[in-house]
Amino acid sequence: MEQRAEQQNPVLSLDIGGTMIRLAVISSEGRILAREHHLTTAEEGPALVIDRILSAMKGILKSHKVDLSQLHSISIATAGVIDTDNGVITSSPNLPGWVNIPLRDTVEAEYGISTFLLNDANAAALGEHEFGAGKGAVNLFYITVSTGIGSGIIIDNKLYSGTSGGAGEIGHMTIDVNGPACKCGSNGCLEVLASGTAVAREAINRIKNGEKSSLAETSDSIENISAKNIGQAAREGDTLALEVISRAAYYLGVGLANVVNLLNPDVIIIGGGLSKLGDLLLEPAIKTVQERAFQLPAQAVRIVPSQLGDDAGIIGAAAFAYRMKTAINEAT
Amino acid sequence: MEQRAEQQNPVLSLDIGGTMIRLAVISSEGRILAREHHLTTAEEGPALVIDRILSAMKGILKSHKVDLSQLHSISIATAGVIDTDNGVITSSPNLPGWVNIPLRDTVEAEYGISTFLLNDANAAALGEHEFGAGKGAVNLFYITVSTGIGSGIIIDNKLYSGTSGGAGEIGHMTIDVNGPACKCGSNGCLEVLASGTAVAREAINRIKNGEKSSLAETSDSIENISAKNIGQAAREGDTLALEVISRAAYYLGVGLANVVNLLNPDVIIIGGGLSKLGDLLLEPAIKTVQERAFQLPAQAVRIVPSQLGDDAGIIGAAAFAYRMKTAINEAT
Repeated sequence: MEQRAEQQNPVLSLDIGGTMIRLAVISSEGRILAREHHLTTAEEGPALVIDRILSAMKGILKSHKVDLSQLHSISIATAGVIDTDNGVITSSPNLPGWVNIPLRDTVEAEYGISTFLLNDANAAALGEHEFGAGKGAVNLFYITVSTGIGSGIIIDNKLYSGTSGGAGEIGHMTIDVNGPACKCGSNGCLEVLASGTAVAREAINRIKNGEKSSLAETSDSIENISAKNIGQAAREGDTLALEVISRAAYYLGVGLANVVNLLNPDVIIIGGGLSKLGDLLLEPAIKTVQERAFQLPAQAVRIVPSQLGDDAGIIGAAAFAYRMKTAINEAT
Repeated sequence: MEQRAEQQNPVLSLDIGGTMIRLAVISSEGRILAREHHLTTAEEGPALVIDRILSAMKGILKSHKVDLSQLHSISIATAGVIDTDNGVITSSPNLPGWVNIPLRDTVEAEYGISTFLLNDANAAALGEHEFGAGKGAVNLFYITVSTGIGSGIIIDNKLYSGTSGGAGEIGHMTIDVNGPACKCGSNGCLEVLASGTAVAREAINRIKNGEKSSLAETSDSIENISAKNIGQAAREGDTLALEVISRAAYYLGVGLANVVNLLNPDVIIIGGGLSKLGDLLLEPAIKTVQERAFQLPAQAVRIVPSQLGDDAGIIGAAAFAYRMKTAINEAT
């Protein structure tokens, strides 16, 4: 903590998602000094995307007049299974073809400064822990509810990423053993019941089955109704939209009750696109946790929305870089 | 590790369960030098049971000629929610009336030597980690499948008991959101589908519904059929018994797949009474994990039976005492 209190050079931080690449220069207090974003266009494949990432990094430094020598390090958060020790993207469901990509070494070779690579949900967990809704927490669970569902786990103030970097796949926790098939090959996973994709699918199916909703009128095509549309309709009082969100929130609560019983964390932070629904999502989810989890761990946990929102990943990647370099310096 | 390698004085170790109290004198290499067991008769209430525990402790030391001054410490594993820092049994489902019992201080006052108190599944996890099937593991998940289902979690070589000592309640992880009611107030919990109690209930119900089984002939009363009877019948080829066990094993696999996806441990150890079924339980459970969990964490995990069996708790309690006293000595 003392290390962070004194001013250090900023980190050039990236968050590479399936849709968007975010870049930012971030201070050691977690402030965003400069930012840019670009479309990922992941379908171009890793080589072209990485070329554009390297250019974008040069671009943001140049346009904001940050010299490489002024940087603490570079830190990259990416969706998927990340081998942080070796700086390799093992695989990524949202980045087709990104298999065993040694992105850290590529960037280090280009820029010649320390570079770090970690999973985006882990980065977001750390960001919230250091600078957001999880400040002061010891055992923290961060869940992102978006197109998919993922999580980052902090145990005893340290990121926990599992034996092979694969921990945190709460989206693929079975909560309904007889439930619908999931793209992961299993069924009844939390993701297939509570993600933005699940919310949209449920609304579309119900409207197709003849149920009334303002969504049918405001959308150009029923097939294109998105979780965002449904959130808007729910805020305007549309009954079907409210029911669909409340159902997803219930399943989210079932999944979080499992986390509360298994891990007894002091805080659960809900981020991702669907968390922007606020209390429409959080209230029924928290109610379900209180109904289903044991009293002792349910009383011990705060369940709160993300404070850093879409910036949790880039801010957390920077926090990770400060932590890692401090740890490396202490070890040597 | 170096601390353990050199010979230290033995620990007087206890495992207080709902049915049985086990006592043992255990060496720093995890060997049992002397042992006894007594019925708990928990219905007598905490005061009488604790009196008998204190007598039994004197008894085992006397009959095996161990002097108090030769003991490293006393260590007690108990079912329930344990506040290890303060040495208090917060509550225990298997020990009615044991609420906020400061057992550590009671024992320390009587014997005048360092005493430790921890949850029995946590103790078993540590026992397997130090001296059993989990030697060398870094991230270990121990599950006990018995009358109920519980677990102990080791993260980064350290016991993880959660923010308020309540971690590890995998028995109350919902895997079937529309499943049967559980005594915890929730429904579709792993325990209500895969415990010994669940196995017995399922067999009894099927026999009552007219299905044929050797169990109906060998038991004095259908209501009294136990998981143990069912295991015996299964080994003798009884179809109904085999099906009931295979169903429980499937649900166990669903729960363990959730653990694999969420925690990505390097080993899962299956203990408890039902684990004595061996491959009848383990094979279908492991097959289910491989089918349902992500490939990367599923490949990273060994799923193995307990090596220490019923002794995991007392041996683990001793391991905990050696660890704690070393940590206390290093801190002072």
